[in-house]
Order: sequence, then structure tokens, then C-alpha cells
Amino acid sequence: MNIRFYNARIVAPSQKDKDNIEVIKGEVWVKGDTIVYVGDGKDSDKVFAQNDIIIWNREIDVKGNVLIPGFKNAHTHTAMTFLRSYADDVPLQEWLQNHIFPKEALLKEEDVYWLNILGIMEYLTSGITTSFDMYLYPYATAKAAEKTGFRTMITSGLNNFTSSVKEVEEQYFKINDMSDRIKFVPGFHAEYTCSKELLEELSAFSNKYKLPVWTHNSETLLEVKECKERWGMSPTKFMDSLGLLEYGGGGYHCIWMDESDYDIFKERNLSMITCPASNLKLNDGIAPVSTFRKNGIKVGIGTDGPSSNNCLDMFREMFLVSGLANVKDKTANSIKAEDVLKMAITDGADAMGLSECNAIAVGKKADIVIIDLNQPNMQPINNIIKNIVYSGSKINVKMTVINGEILYADGNFNIGIDPTEVYEKANSIIRSME
Amino acid sequence: MNIRFYNARIVAPSQKDKDNIEVIKGEVWVKGDTIVYVGDGKDSDKVFAQNDIIIWNREIDVKGNVLIPGFKNAHTHTAMTFLRSYADDVPLQEWLQNHIFPKEALLKEEDVYWLNILGIMEYLTSGITTSFDMYLYPYATAKAAEKTGFRTMITSGLNNFTSSVKEVEEQYFKINDMSDRIKFVPGFHAEYTCSKELLEELSAFSNKYKLPVWTHNSETLLEVKECKERWGMSPTKFMDSLGLLEYGGGGYHCIWMDESDYDIFKERNLSMITCPASNLKLNDGIAPVSTFRKNGIKVGIGTDGPSSNNCLDMFREMFLVSGLANVKDKTANSIKAEDVLKMAITDGADAMGLSECNAIAVGKKADIVIIDLNQPNMQPINNIIKNIVYSGSKINVKMTVINGEILYADGNFNIGIDPTEVYEKANSIIRSME
Repeated sequence: MNIRFYNARIVAPSQKDKDNIEVIKGEVWVKGDTIVYVGDGKDSDKVFAQNDIIIWNREIDVKGNVLIPGFKNAHTHTAMTFLRSYADDVPLQEWLQNHIFPKEALLKEEDVYWLNILGIMEYLTSGITTSFDMYLYPYATAKAAEKTGFRTMITSGLNNFTSSVKEVEEQYFKINDMSDRIKFVPGFHAEYTCSKELLEELSAFSNKYKLPVWTHNSETLLEVKECKERWGMSPTKFMDSLGLLEYGGGGYHCIWMDESDYDIFKERNLSMITCPASNLKLNDGIAPVSTFRKNGIKVGIGTDGPSSNNCLDMFREMFLVSGLANVKDKTANSIKAEDVLKMAITDGADAMGLSECNAIAVGKKADIVIIDLNQPNMQPINNIIKNIVYSGSKINVKMTVINGEILYADGNFNIGIDPTEVYEKANSIIRSME
Repeated sequence: MNIRFYNARIVAPSQKDKDNIEVIKGEVWVKGDTIVYVGDGKDSDKVFAQNDIIIWNREIDVKGNVLIPGFKNAHTHTAMTFLRSYADDVPLQEWLQNHIFPKEALLKEEDVYWLNILGIMEYLTSGITTSFDMYLYPYATAKAAEKTGFRTMITSGLNNFTSSVKEVEEQYFKINDMSDRIKFVPGFHAEYTCSKELLEELSAFSNKYKLPVWTHNSETLLEVKECKERWGMSPTKFMDSLGLLEYGGGGYHCIWMDESDYDIFKERNLSMITCPASNLKLNDGIAPVSTFRKNGIKVGIGTDGPSSNNCLDMFREMFLVSGLANVKDKTANSIKAEDVLKMAITDGADAMGLSECNAIAVGKKADIVIIDLNQPNMQPINNIIKNIVYSGSKINVKMTVINGEILYADGNFNIGIDPTEVYEKANSIIRSME
């Protein structure tokens, strides 16, 4: 769509320091799926000349509210919506082995499609415009994004039990061919669910095509201990020894790291994705987020799956990133609010290889969220970025735009499916397993 | 108002075990400010006979959504809304001395009235129907509750600088005379802001009228250390030695406790109010919530003031109570979701001395919230209570009823004041101080 947003406050890259963000007042113009203008609107003649005449589908008076780039949910298993509030209050391994895996064995491909759509709806209510998804039946995940207009990066959850490198290779080619909004990179579930041979095979594939590789890494102390017993080295070092990290990628969680693991992350230009709510809930530990950042390693933020969280809400994750870094570092100012917001948007996008969606700036994809300041939790307006990071809520998401299409506005979904149908499907899927 | 809620799921005291809650299906009838019926509606003849004929002002089809008793925000400084996102990322003492106290010195009584109304609006969006408020100008706090229809328990923030026991005594009689919805109990700011003489005077007053006393207690390690240096004992023991705890009351925060402090809490029937978001933000430490509970001590939940949080959101607090108890106790199931919900409602109400508002049951005050299940974060419906505690958000608060009056519904406030006026006042108050 061609959309003109006017009377807006805009969270944009700082003019003075491109590594920072600032709040400016003005307009954002979207042509098709791309941002073509950000400014005060007074130099529009110049812009018109550059871009031809734009016939607006919508001119939206933002009424002083805030345009931010959409949040990037940089680690999730979206379709696990069916297990939300199903098995809680147990530690990771027990939760996986006794509660999650048996139910997942009953999942069908069509179930994953519908369960993804439910998760996508929740993303839209939280201003999340992109997910980095690892789950069973990646084609179903891709189809759900295709149907709804959502943007997703899919990675394979390769493991000894449910998939093969051959399948990953097929998925890589087929999924990357589906839509500009849907991409695929190789990944594996975790060191403890993959044989060395399987990982060597994945390494050969990723090196052949020069691809990044993603995985759950050092989420629990037990995982690291057992990996060291098995291979005499940390999960990060083990992966590196297999040549899995030659072309970047990174790790989800990364709580229990050795000093030398940081060196590998730096050397291989890897990113770390932190999932604070899930880590709290499963008692995994508190991730050393500020240590990663001090080492110059990019950190994105993920919700993890809805079964271990149990919601998909970037506002809660941002507050937790900030608060838990204080606990970890024994200070009240471990990470600035501005940096937390950057992690949830820019750094997450860059980690995923989606730099075209990392900012509200000319040439970037139009993944934009309107944050409603006309709610009591956003008043008074002392500091908009701090209000968003420390006080923001789903109640503040007035509109979510992905690739220039308005998918959610004022509580209504525009995803081509009736929400009631999605809720009914999700309930019938889990009920059919009981 | 006389309101009939039908087609509802209801979070009510369990029939089998009154100390627990359960979800039942049926109707709730409100006559004036009181709940007069909870059940399936089929025995209505009997109820009509008991209560005369009720002419309904509203009959509300709840459409399968959930009625819960309103949340009790058991510790807050509501009017600190003006300092939201004003001074962040500094530890408690620096925050208080360098940022908060200088601005508070400029506050006028009328400012506190408007800033309270802003906070009350946010409470309504989060399903909070009662606050336990300690702040400057308690009459203004009372008037804001009187004007809007909100329910509040006020306690005095007595200290060496801004008030006297004589004033507290006046406030006690005047405020308790204002409205059934507005109550007052004595309190003091903290051991470190009060002289021994002042506390002895407060003790004499509270003993004369047999009143509970509340205060900030053992919020930081420094506070406890300095108290021990000053008086040779912990804050709790010091208060007890002055006779301040003869008639109950309790402490806010209570993070750094001695073994013997728990004994005093038990012996004096005191309650503890935990404020996890604020504690994270100010790096106070993680409260030993489950230790209090194992000692049989009632624990309520508070947001603390919006300047140190920065939002007023019981959903975020509930998730944090659960998650941080896991961190503290090194387990994934420290406190059950059902117990966290009870803390946020029943235990908070009981701690405040407002047991008439602690449940949806006949004879209780009609403080009721409708939780919207028709949102993606509440689907599928595997476990409603876990969904609320782990996944709930302000977006799920469809209606907030206090004392039988609908104060908030579908995003609209019914508090006798235009929200825009409140936002303008709050902004002009903080701007006038710069």
C-alpha cells in the first residue's frame, strides 16, 4: 500500500550518531513495501520528483503518537501456542521430555499452520513484525506467514529424531523461493539432541552455500556440563570445531558461557538472542547480556515459545532484559533503555540478517508500529523511549504494518482469517490430543 | 448499580477448599455496591425471595469471558506518575535524594489530586480496583478516589521532614469519615527517615486507637546495615521494640530479613507486600517471597510508585513474582500460578484489612474485572488461571467495576473527567518544575 503517516513522532536513527536512535517529529511515506521518505514533510517537492507522484491508499493522522520500527522476535517456536499453560512450573529437561515431546509427536502439519496463525495474531498485538522461528513442519510456518502477510525468518530445528540434512537442504531452497517476506537459514535444535555425524553433515551443507547456522546454545548448566563430558569442550567450541560457525549465525539463550566462548562469538561474528521470560520460567539462569554487549557481540531479544513464557510480548521481554541485567551485574543501570529498544528492533533484525527491516529510514521495508501515547501508562511524556521500554504494553499497540500492509489496527486483525476460527482450531487441536 | 453478569466464567473461592480458588460457570448479581448472588442462575427464585426484586440497570452478557475479583495494588505512591521515566537507571538512595525529593518539594496539593487521577486511570486499565497508597497530601489522594469512584486505602508517609503525628491523627479521623471506599491507617516512610522520638509518638497514637502500622521495611541492604549500626537491631525488631506492631500492619519490600524478623511477622500477624518490578529496577535485591509464605505470613503484591517501575500493571508484577521466586529458590516451580493470583487479589485485600473486597462471593463488595479471553494471548484455553498469571496483559481488561459502578469498559473511562484533561495536567505539572 502507499501510506502517508503524518503528525507523527518517529523513532529513527540519530542524525548525529547512526548507532543511536532519537525521536523526531514529522512524516513517514510508504510506497508499496518500502519507506520512501522520513522527514518534516516540507521538502516534499524534492521527494515527489525522486519518487514520481504517489497516489495514497491511506493518509493516516498519527495525532502525535509514535512510529517505531516493528519489534523483531529473534527466537521463538510460534506454533507451540497449543501448549500455552499446558505444562508449567517444571524445569527445562523434565518439561521437554515428559510434557512437550509427547504432545509434539501428535502434531500434524495442518495443526502447525493454524497454531502459527494464532501466534502471529499475538505478535501483531505486541507490535512484533518479524519472528525467527524454529519448529516442526517449517513449510506450515512459511504458509502461515504467507497467508497472513507476516514476515518470518525460519531456521531448521534439525535433530536426531524428526529431520535430516537432506530435508533441511530442501527446505532451504523451497522456502527461500516462496516470498520476499519469508526466509530460511539452517539451524539445529541443540548439541544434546544431535549426533556428531549429523552436525558434520549440516556443517558441510552450510559451508557449501556459505550459510549462517543457529541453535539453542548453553541454555542450562546441565547442557554445558554434559557437552563437556561428551566432547571435552563447551557447546560453542564444539560447534566451532565442526566448522558450523564459518559463516556467522549464533545462539539462543547463551546463559552459561566460558570466557573462550565470547572469543568465538567475536571471531565468527555470531549474535546472541536472549529470552529472559522463558529463562525465568524454566529456571535456566540469568543470561550475561551485558557481558556479550561489552564484548561487542550483537544481542537480540526473543520470547521463546509460548509454552515456556507463556505470552508473546516484547514489552515484557524488554523490561526483563533491563531488570535482569541489573540483577546479574548488581547495579541499577546495567543497560540503558535506548539500548534495550535497539536490541528489540535493530540488533535483532541485524542478527537475523534482516537489516532491511531494522529502522524507519528511506529504503527500508515498511515494518512500522504506531504506539498509542493516549493511554495513562504513557503519560506524562517525560521520555518516550523509557516509557516504551519500562511502561509499554500491548494496550499501546494501535497499528502494526508489515511490508506496507496494515495487518492490525485498533484491535482488529486484517489477516484474511476470522480470529474466532483460529481460536476454535487451536482449542480443538489440543483437545484432540487428550 | 444493579448489574447482572451472565454467561460468565467466574474465579471464585473453591467449594471444596476455601483457601483455594476455582473457575466456575454461571452468573454474578450485583445490587448496589454488593454481590448478592453467585451461581448457575437456576436457583434464582430463592435469591429473589432473599433480596426482593432487583431491577437491573445493566444485564451484561459476559460471553464466556472471565470475571475475577479486582486486583489489589498493595503498595504504591500513585501520584508519582509525574516522575514516570524522569529519573531512571540509578540506585534507590541516589534516586531518592538527588532526583525524587527535590521534585517532590515543588509539588502542590492540587497537583497530587490530578496525578492520582492519572494513576487511577492506569489502575483501571490493569484491572486494579484498590490501591494501598502512601504519599504526600493524603487528602488529595482521597479526593481523587472520591471523584473517580476508585477504592483506596491510604497510609501516612510520616517522616522527619514533611509531616507530624498530629497531622496523621487528623488525617486518620477526617479521611475515614469521607466515604466507604476510602480508608486510612497510620504509617511512616521508613526507619531511616524518622527519629526515634517521632516513631515513639506514632506508637502511642497507634496503640491508643489499636491501629495497624505500615512502612517501607528492609528494602535495601544499606538500610538494614545502617539501622543495625544505629539501634543494634534490624528495622523489624526496632519497630517492634517501640511497640509499633502491637495491632498488626506490615512492611513493604522486606527483602533483607533476619531469621528473627520472620518470627516477629508471625507473632504480630504482620503482612509483607512485595514489589518485584521496582526492586529489579532499583537493584534492591530479590525478595524472599516463598520464605514468607512458608512461614505462614501473608504476602500481597504492589507496583510501588510509577517512578520506579515505571508502569502500574498487576499482570507484569504477577509474572515477576513467579519468575523471581524461581531465581531466588533455584527451582522452576517455587510458587504456583493459583497462589500468585491469590496474592494479587485475596491476600493483598486481607493484608490491607479489606477482606470485604477479597473475592467474588455473596456479601462481598462488587469489585469485579472482566478478563477478555477473545485475544490471542489467552488462547487456547488450557488453564485460565495460568493464562492470566503468565500471559495476561492490560489488553485483556475488558471492564473494571468498583463498588458496583462500571468505571472502565472497552477502553473508555467513566470517571467524570476527560482523559485528555488529565494528560494535559500531568504534563503541565512536570513541565512547570523544569
